[in-house]
Amino acid sequence: MGRERNDWEELLAQKNAGDEIFSFAARIFPICRSITGDGVRQTLREIGSHLALKVHEVPTGTEVFDWTIPREWNIREAYIKNSAGDKIVDFAQCNLHVMSYSVPVRQRVSLAELKEHIYTLPELPDLIPYRTSYYADDWAFCIAHRQLHGLSEQAYEVVIDSSLESGFLTYGEYLHKGETDEEFLLSAHVCHPSLANDNCSGVALLTHLAQRMAGLRTRYSYRFLFAPGTIGAIAWLAANEARSARIKYGLVVSMVGDGGGPTYKRSRRGDAAIDRAMAHILGHSGLAPTIEEFSPYGYDERQYCSPGFNLPVGLLQRSKYGTIPQYHSSGDDLAFIKPQHLLESYRMIVETIGVIENDAVYRNMTPKCEPQLGNRGLYRRVGGQEIAAENMAMLWVLNFSDGAHSLLDIADRSKLPFKIVLKAARLLEEHGLLTGGSSASTASASD
Amino acid sequence: MGRERNDWEELLAQKNAGDEIFSFAARIFPICRSITGDGVRQTLREIGSHLALKVHEVPTGTEVFDWTIPREWNIREAYIKNSAGDKIVDFAQCNLHVMSYSVPVRQRVSLAELKEHIYTLPELPDLIPYRTSYYADDWAFCIAHRQLHGLSEQAYEVVIDSSLESGFLTYGEYLHKGETDEEFLLSAHVCHPSLANDNCSGVALLTHLAQRMAGLRTRYSYRFLFAPGTIGAIAWLAANEARSARIKYGLVVSMVGDGGGPTYKRSRRGDAAIDRAMAHILGHSGLAPTIEEFSPYGYDERQYCSPGFNLPVGLLQRSKYGTIPQYHSSGDDLAFIKPQHLLESYRMIVETIGVIENDAVYRNMTPKCEPQLGNRGLYRRVGGQEIAAENMAMLWVLNFSDGAHSLLDIADRSKLPFKIVLKAARLLEEHGLLTGGSSASTASASD
Amino acid sequence: MGRERNDWEELLAQKNAGDEIFSFAARIFPICRSITGDGVRQTLREIGSHLALKVHEVPTGTEVFDWTIPREWNIREAYIKNSAGDKIVDFAQCNLHVMSYSVPVRQRVSLAELKEHIYTLPELPDLIPYRTSYYADDWAFCIAHRQLHGLSEQAYEVVIDSSLESGFLTYGEYLHKGETDEEFLLSAHVCHPSLANDNCSGVALLTHLAQRMAGLRTRYSYRFLFAPGTIGAIAWLAANEARSARIKYGLVVSMVGDGGGPTYKRSRRGDAAIDRAMAHILGHSGLAPTIEEFSPYGYDERQYCSPGFNLPVGLLQRSKYGTIPQYHSSGDDLAFIKPQHLLESYRMIVETIGVIENDAVYRNMTPKCEPQLGNRGLYRRVGGQEIAAENMAMLWVLNFSDGAHSLLDIADRSKLPFKIVLKAARLLEEHGLLTGGSSASTASASD
Repeated sequence: MGRERNDWEELLAQKNAGDEIFSFAARIFPICRSITGDGVRQTLREIGSHLALKVHEVPTGTEVFDWTIPREWNIREAYIKNSAGDKIVDFAQCNLHVMSYSVPVRQRVSLAELKEHIYTLPELPDLIPYRTSYYADDWAFCIAHRQLHGLSEQAYEVVIDSSLESGFLTYGEYLHKGETDEEFLLSAHVCHPSLANDNCSGVALLTHLAQRMAGLRTRYSYRFLFAPGTIGAIAWLAANEARSARIKYGLVVSMVGDGGGPTYKRSRRGDAAIDRAMAHILGHSGLAPTIEEFSPYGYDERQYCSPGFNLPVGLLQRSKYGTIPQYHSSGDDLAFIKPQHLLESYRMIVETIGVIENDAVYRNMTPKCEPQLGNRGLYRRVGGQEIAAENMAMLWVLNFSDGAHSLLDIADRSKLPFKIVLKAARLLEEHGLLTGGSSASTASASD
Repeated sequence: MGRERNDWEELLAQKNAGDEIFSFAARIFPICRSITGDGVRQTLREIGSHLALKVHEVPTGTEVFDWTIPREWNIREAYIKNSAGDKIVDFAQCNLHVMSYSVPVRQRVSLAELKEHIYTLPELPDLIPYRTSYYADDWAFCIAHRQLHGLSEQAYEVVIDSSLESGFLTYGEYLHKGETDEEFLLSAHVCHPSLANDNCSGVALLTHLAQRMAGLRTRYSYRFLFAPGTIGAIAWLAANEARSARIKYGLVVSMVGDGGGPTYKRSRRGDAAIDRAMAHILGHSGLAPTIEEFSPYGYDERQYCSPGFNLPVGLLQRSKYGTIPQYHSSGDDLAFIKPQHLLESYRMIVETIGVIENDAVYRNMTPKCEPQLGNRGLYRRVGGQEIAAENMAMLWVLNFSDGAHSLLDIADRSKLPFKIVLKAARLLEEHGLLTGGSSASTASASD
Repeated sequence: MGRERNDWEELLAQKNAGDEIFSFAARIFPICRSITGDGVRQTLREIGSHLALKVHEVPTGTEVFDWTIPREWNIREAYIKNSAGDKIVDFAQCNLHVMSYSVPVRQRVSLAELKEHIYTLPELPDLIPYRTSYYADDWAFCIAHRQLHGLSEQAYEVVIDSSLESGFLTYGEYLHKGETDEEFLLSAHVCHPSLANDNCSGVALLTHLAQRMAGLRTRYSYRFLFAPGTIGAIAWLAANEARSARIKYGLVVSMVGDGGGPTYKRSRRGDAAIDRAMAHILGHSGLAPTIEEFSPYGYDERQYCSPGFNLPVGLLQRSKYGTIPQYHSSGDDLAFIKPQHLLESYRMIVETIGVIENDAVYRNMTPKCEPQLGNRGLYRRVGGQEIAAENMAMLWVLNFSDGAHSLLDIADRSKLPFKIVLKAARLLEEHGLLTGGSSASTASASD
């Protein structure tokens, strides 16, 4: 990344990024996704209209570690009609109405029978819950508790025109090739239907990022993975087991469009470079971040951080899953996510990449006493006045560039933002006071 | 301990344990104990009526490290009579009235002379203090400050019919033999007279525990030591120096009948297995525990943790010694201890033993990605709902059973109770998902 | 230092030390110092009237690491006259009125022109700021903001009769020779003009300490350095590079006369012996100390702790530089410092030296169980009463004198003051219970 031009942040974090991410999230929001089926394919096609996405189809029955790729699920229509023939619940209105992987059904049922196949959220009576039953044959409708309450004793017609057949599990990946084969994995799950934050937001953010990175010279290669949760990540790991050691950094990205958090869950390693970089960036975000220790429950970091892989992959979210009333319900709609929050989240990731790309160990060329910064024009002030952050950063970089501390170490120790420390290092290097920085690469968008 | 049957807690922690411990504490409360003499022998006989206790007699003059076994002290009667011939202070009423190891005396004294041999607690004027003078020849009476105040100028007759003669120091031990020679030392001092909490409570609790353990198959051997404080522990260590390395875990148990604390003082090592197990159990006790670092003042952990031994022995108490007004006074009577608190303390020790016996390092048999718990019936839920602690424990055990983390490590990291983590591990092992646990033994009470 | 006589503190911390230090600070206060010139020479002559000070003169143009010794600056008079011929600002009244290193000037200027060469403190309108311009040719006056406000439009005569000529940089050092060549560096900057706390206080305190130490037998050698800030320390390091490894402990001493703090900034190493000793002494000072991590901004620890030297040198202050309104202004006058605070600061340093001189690893001769302190007269109490700090210290020393813990380790762990721990160790050593202490030296003032 550009050591001559410090254009990384400017290039990527253009002001309209939030609007563009929102717009793409809105575009894929209506699609009915599940862990398999045409909804995933359609979503990947949308992503593919922006990226040279490589789409993989894994046949039903394929064994992936302890798991087997399930039958493919598709759904055409579903509804509940009352005895008057009115559709009182209609999948066409909201795809959360049908429990994902519901088996086909077409029958008349009493209210009591119907209630055995209804999920509601009694404490949030206006919201429709999101439910799945991937590995147990069952069917159900999900409706607002208030509507359940209003149902009277009569015969209902229930129709779910779905299919569970031998087919494929589908996922897409895109590789931004850098100077080395060492990879930064960015992973978003694509298995949820119309839930805006979870995870149209993450899919759209990563699509936008991949798009913006095109043509940018980077040290590391960036692998973008759009796969169904759990089984998709497992299928990808099974197909890429031998190459998984290339992954030096990783982030699972989900729920990045609301105004909560930010929340970062550390990788299982706890102190991997990605953990340190994200903690640094979130700590300087001006927001009120929560940095959590790893736990084996959450999103696909569960698989990446299983003990047999133990990859350095963390999870970035705004509000943490399960902690907000909108979670896994129709409350997680497009009104719940905002361009401004998507922009903030996008910047956190871009700045974290900036740390990863630019962190390096420099060496002070005049380690005995301070060099005289003043006569090099690097220290402009009349004695006795307060010192600027830029000058302070120079003193920190000089003092700790002893071959044992990287710029991120120095930024953390000095409590200065990495970008100011980086700028100071480059200025000192230009003046011959600092050398090294071997692990930072040179890159710019234009060459 | 029973890997087939999880009967350890049920077997040991029967509801009436508190009453039984209290009842035995009440039985030994009236005996006048000191560091030597018939009071200790009588107490050991009472313990011996429940256990196959081995009683040791160490002759006066025996050298034990830097110390010498002192003369044996016995007392028959003691009183102060006023000039009217009334016994105004009588050892028969309360054995705290005579300073322990008081030399014999029989003389008439003025009030001024008497006051030189009187101890009171001016700030707790109704309580009789407990005082000793083991290694300096002296005599004294201990009385309520209020009574001292009321004494008028007259001639008093003071009689202490005690003897200090060549004899023995007496202690008792009981060994519950386990599958290995590695020992868990449980030690209670038996040198205090009528002080209910300090330490009739500890003596009674350990007596009950030893009794309940009879017939139970355990991995470790459990050594119960009932000895006078300081000199008794030193005598035992001198006699068992060569075997002391067998002690892998240890607890000094005192003041376990009041409602304070619990208080655990770590061993000198600070992070011995006993320290970690007790901290875990107390942390999940639902009470407000205090975990203290080791200090070289307290009970017999002072000797066990002297630098030449440095045994992994901690101290369990409810209220910490010296922090309550009843400490070392007649306020520490049978009304101060309660069956309910004795039961709680008993359970803490039993559960700690449960951790020690069952902690083990397992190994995940499917370390690459999660195994599919659902199709094994181990993960019953409809997607989207909250996950139960039992399922969370399975995820933790699977993720961290990498050969480097024991179940206690996992319990501490997950903040889940050890017993839930253990249950999850056994369930996973039954389903072939986990192997190892080599350091846990198989045992049950019935075979 | 006296292992037979514990006379270190008594010898050095005589009650009148505060008054004597204040008196010397007041004597050097009026002198106009800068980083070079006769003000520094005069100050060193004053110090030299108390000590066998060795004064060094380093010629202008000498290269010292990345720096060059600048021209020597001297000033005879300076003033601003109004058109009526009145001196409205006069260097003779306050040497802060002229920016240090101002080039000579003699001209008539308009108010607007004058204002370009005036510094004030708008938020502290009655104080005169202290400003310097060592390495950029410029001139300026520093005045109270209130006075600037009152200046009317007229012609002013400005005169600075200064010289910037080839000459010398001057510094002084004094060595108190100890039993070993290992050195404790005590460094105070002498480049500030009439600023009482910053740093007449530090210069006077170290002068007094050096004087008091004369004749005292010490283990370590004590090097007192009185040099201009930055360039002086750099010049000294350049001249002593080969010998710098002898410095095992060091303190920069500045701003030690006000009632704030105390503030200790750790050396770059963070856990050097000086850091641990100062943290211990400040922690037991009864004041509210702040212990800061190292940062590369401050006083001459910047040079001593540059990565090429990385000497174990910390910074002791009362209020931290830059945190008080009086800092670098005429508010830092003799009324701002007090004998009582100078005495407190002096004692902190003396007690820290006491720790450094006396810290040692002892070995318990009876490591198996406690030794019997009572029959050696070391443990006087009737059983059941509270234990004194002296006895507690003996238990700590015995328990942790295992060859791995020094007295300072034990003092920190026990939270007891070092001096009580040291006293306990010496008493135990006298009684043959402790041996070693090889790194403590024997010394007394009288032999």
